[in-house]
Amino acid sequence: MRVCLTGGTGFLGREVASALLAAGHEVVHLARSSAPQTVVLDLLCDDPAPVLRDLRPDALVHLAWYAVPGRFWQAPENLEWLAASLRLVRAFAAHGGGRLITAGTCAEYDWSHRLLDEQLTPMRPSTLYGEAKASLCRMIAHVAGTLDLCWASGCIFFPYGPHEQPGRLFSSLFDGLIADRPVDVTDGLQVRDFLHVEDAAAAFVALLASDLQGRVNIAGGSPVAVRSFVAEVAGQLGRLDLVNFGARPAQPGEPTYMAAGLRRLRGELGFVPRFGLSDGIADAIVRRRHRPPLQR
Amino acid sequence: MRVCLTGGTGFLGREVASALLAAGHEVVHLARSSAPQTVVLDLLCDDPAPVLRDLRPDALVHLAWYAVPGRFWQAPENLEWLAASLRLVRAFAAHGGGRLITAGTCAEYDWSHRLLDEQLTPMRPSTLYGEAKASLCRMIAHVAGTLDLCWASGCIFFPYGPHEQPGRLFSSLFDGLIADRPVDVTDGLQVRDFLHVEDAAAAFVALLASDLQGRVNIAGGSPVAVRSFVAEVAGQLGRLDLVNFGARPAQPGEPTYMAAGLRRLRGELGFVPRFGLSDGIADAIVRRRHRPPLQR
Repeated sequence: MRVCLTGGTGFLGREVASALLAAGHEVVHLARSSAPQTVVLDLLCDDPAPVLRDLRPDALVHLAWYAVPGRFWQAPENLEWLAASLRLVRAFAAHGGGRLITAGTCAEYDWSHRLLDEQLTPMRPSTLYGEAKASLCRMIAHVAGTLDLCWASGCIFFPYGPHEQPGRLFSSLFDGLIADRPVDVTDGLQVRDFLHVEDAAAAFVALLASDLQGRVNIAGGSPVAVRSFVAEVAGQLGRLDLVNFGARPAQPGEPTYMAAGLRRLRGELGFVPRFGLSDGIADAIVRRRHRPPLQR
Repeated sequence: MRVCLTGGTGFLGREVASALLAAGHEVVHLARSSAPQTVVLDLLCDDPAPVLRDLRPDALVHLAWYAVPGRFWQAPENLEWLAASLRLVRAFAAHGGGRLITAGTCAEYDWSHRLLDEQLTPMRPSTLYGEAKASLCRMIAHVAGTLDLCWASGCIFFPYGPHEQPGRLFSSLFDGLIADRPVDVTDGLQVRDFLHVEDAAAAFVALLASDLQGRVNIAGGSPVAVRSFVAEVAGQLGRLDLVNFGARPAQPGEPTYMAAGLRRLRGELGFVPRFGLSDGIADAIVRRRHRPPLQR
């Protein structure tokens, strides 16, 4: 089917674009800069209605958002991205509509819960980013029936992979260690549910092809201490000596344990990731070494 | 101070505009059509930033929203209005900012509670309208500190008054009964907290002049059965004989009892309404008889 994709040059989006093509879909990127298979559209400025009226896609996968590492949690840009997303959803519904996939986040949940379940865990974001994503979900959930949208939100936990922007965990480790620079990290005792970004992308494409509605967690299902993740990356690069555990303070308010309930991803969607932690990191390292320059 | 006002030709907005002028403020309307003291701006289409950059208001009172009686509860237009409001708030903050007053609604609350209190009652909207207003509040609450906004939301309960659009309770009663038409109403056993719109406007202006932040309920504090309100209007018009109680079904999901907690409005803001129910209705009747044509 014809799928419009936003954020298709980003860390997750480029993998989703590849997976959509591999699955036989026609992909039309909506992006600020012209490129192959792209319709130029600045979501923050332009009215998306004329573009969607011309394209009449069968589906919309909306991944674009403000994503500068560190800053995105509390950046006022979240207001613009929520506004732009609401307009985009409305325009999509007005011009054909159908299957809508948005990108949610584990930051929508109440982090005082350890196992984050789509139906059981309250949504109580502690960040503006989480609030904006939760607001988008709440609004779409209310209006999907009226607008004949079949909507699901992939609720993203902790993806890692070759095309991370600088400033994320894997990219900081890789970029520092291959340049023989010491890398400061936290004590790493907090437990997270990592997933190779290629698996996250495959989960999004499976979600698109399904008729599941509402939130679906996208996570690996094997929570590990961040320390183990760091040690695996550094160990595979042979530079565990350059990692300074405990040199960075933990983020205030960061929970010690977070895991995704996978009842929907595994049970309802039947999705199983391709990579475990060790082979996933091995793949990410190989691909980051040989990655083409990032398109912008 | 210089106050930008949106929705200033609406049912509540025109009263707020008068009250702002009476309080000595300079009022600049932001509206779609040109009129005295108005800067033309279509909030749903135009970027509000250039206008706010030129005006640099000290305060923004944002009342405009989709408000077609009956339809507004679940209309997809709520998505556009939430998006437009987020952009407006962001533009206001970027160009001076300061005091921001938005219009909230009792529909943001969990209606299974009888006394709706700003701090104690959970926000759990059952309508898209309530969800959109609650999302706006959540987003602003998260970002107000970062953006140096001193923000309050007037959480509106059941205002009535002379300039109601057709289809609301008071306007339906008045317009029907003075034309000698029978008026069908529900059994009217549900209890609501009515307030003359002039008092609601005065509360907004008092809120603007205060430094209160967050939600503040705007209600009369004397909940009565809707039946009593209807009987008062019809009685004063001498046409109680034309009112058919029970001829309309109650709205599904409508709560039987709703009252506003007034700890903040009375205790913190010190606001006392001018009108009781009987003299308020008398005033609304006189003014609707002699009202000038609605500006559009």
